Amino acid sequence: MTDFFRFLYELIVSPNRSLLWKLPPILGFLPGKSELYVLAFIHKSTAITNDKGQALNNERLEYLGDAVLGSVIGEYLFNKYPEQNEGFLTKMRSKMVNGEALGSLALKMELDKLLENHVTGATSIKHISGDAFEALIGAIYLDKGYRMAKRFILRKMVERYLNLEELEKAETNFKSQLIEWAQQGKKEVCFYTDIEPYDPTRFISYVSIGDRLFGSGTGVSKKEAEQQAALETLKEIKP
Amino acid sequence: MTDFFRFLYELIVSPNRSLLWKLPPILGFLPGKSELYVLAFIHKSTAITNDKGQALNNERLEYLGDAVLGSVIGEYLFNKYPEQNEGFLTKMRSKMVNGEALGSLALKMELDKLLENHVTGATSIKHISGDAFEALIGAIYLDKGYRMAKRFILRKMVERYLNLEELEKAETNFKSQLIEWAQQGKKEVCFYTDIEPYDPTRFISYVSIGDRLFGSGTGVSKKEAEQQAALETLKEIKP
Repeated sequence: MTDFFRFLYELIVSPNRSLLWKLPPILGFLPGKSELYVLAFIHKSTAITNDKGQALNNERLEYLGDAVLGSVIGEYLFNKYPEQNEGFLTKMRSKMVNGEALGSLALKMELDKLLENHVTGATSIKHISGDAFEALIGAIYLDKGYRMAKRFILRKMVERYLNLEELEKAETNFKSQLIEWAQQGKKEVCFYTDIEPYDPTRFISYVSIGDRLFGSGTGVSKKEAEQQAALETLKEIKP
Repeated sequence: MTDFFRFLYELIVSPNRSLLWKLPPILGFLPGKSELYVLAFIHKSTAITNDKGQALNNERLEYLGDAVLGSVIGEYLFNKYPEQNEGFLTKMRSKMVNGEALGSLALKMELDKLLENHVTGATSIKHISGDAFEALIGAIYLDKGYRMAKRFILRKMVERYLNLEELEKAETNFKSQLIEWAQQGKKEVCFYTDIEPYDPTRFISYVSIGDRLFGSGTGVSKKEAEQQAALETLKEIKP
């Protein structure tokens, strides 16, 4: 009951009450340490500092939430697919928790409406919302423990928004992701792929965008080498 | 008490009793589902299969343990360093849980003596022991839950074997790691580093081993570019 009365009090007097009002339906429970949840929605671009001059943002919470999310989803997939090997589980998890997927999810959960509105700069609202989702998990973990964080992830994320059958089928195609990115920005992407000079059993692929050389990759097939080169390039252009 | 009597019974009749006898002092508690712990010490190189022909080894448990370990260490560092940013926490964690560190730790814990002795092939016993350590954490998590896995990690790993002050100072120097690796194998490593042609504010570095070109990297300084190139090369040569 303490949590209940403290939260009720904060709903009335806290300077963050507009955020706090929106939390219970999203969380499915009443927050205890509401300052953690407030912090979860402060992106680093707001540049708020505390009285010691330290940056006050959700990056640390995001770091923690990312780890907890990985662990919960890891266990979920481990139990869900008792006959699949570790490679399958790793791939499925990365389809569920990559930045793009979490960003879309956070927008569906309307977390963008809870963000501190000082956000500026080039980072997209989708990306920032995805980070806030992870930070929110970090906040729940610190406030209510692993079990509650797990319940939140399974009920509010996995059961509500994820279609595992679709995800199983989804190919993570880096080459097409890169080409799509280039088309949006009206840039020209080329793949130069050939037999690797020093190891003729393998292929090597280079990616150029405009007249600049980006990632390279090798693999036992042309496709594998190109995927690897595309992935390296994506990492470079979307840090 | 059920756990106690079941375990006592298995200590006498189980075909794996020689392993089971060694577990309690390592774990600090009595295992419940002892088959999980047995599985944790079966490396994939043993090629044991079940009656359906599926591989029976610790890879799935390792996948799970890796995630739980990341989460526990993540929380530990989060609380230990309240004033450090997310970049510091990430770097510290990777110093604590990288393959090399876990392998050394597992040897100190003498986990190599618990491994199924069918191990063959080129993978080092250190590497295999480190994998078994992660699998052991996965087994504890499935058997006893997150709290017990956390207690095991903090008491048996962090408090006993890790010196955080040393780790804070330790530089993760990929270039020297690569050079050391090459010296051991009597291979010649060269770094070609220069101003990046398309962006004169940055440097680009290529690594060659013998007459073959490996990783490349860029950075705002020569050192950063070389570190990046060395890291990429290490990934390629030690998959």
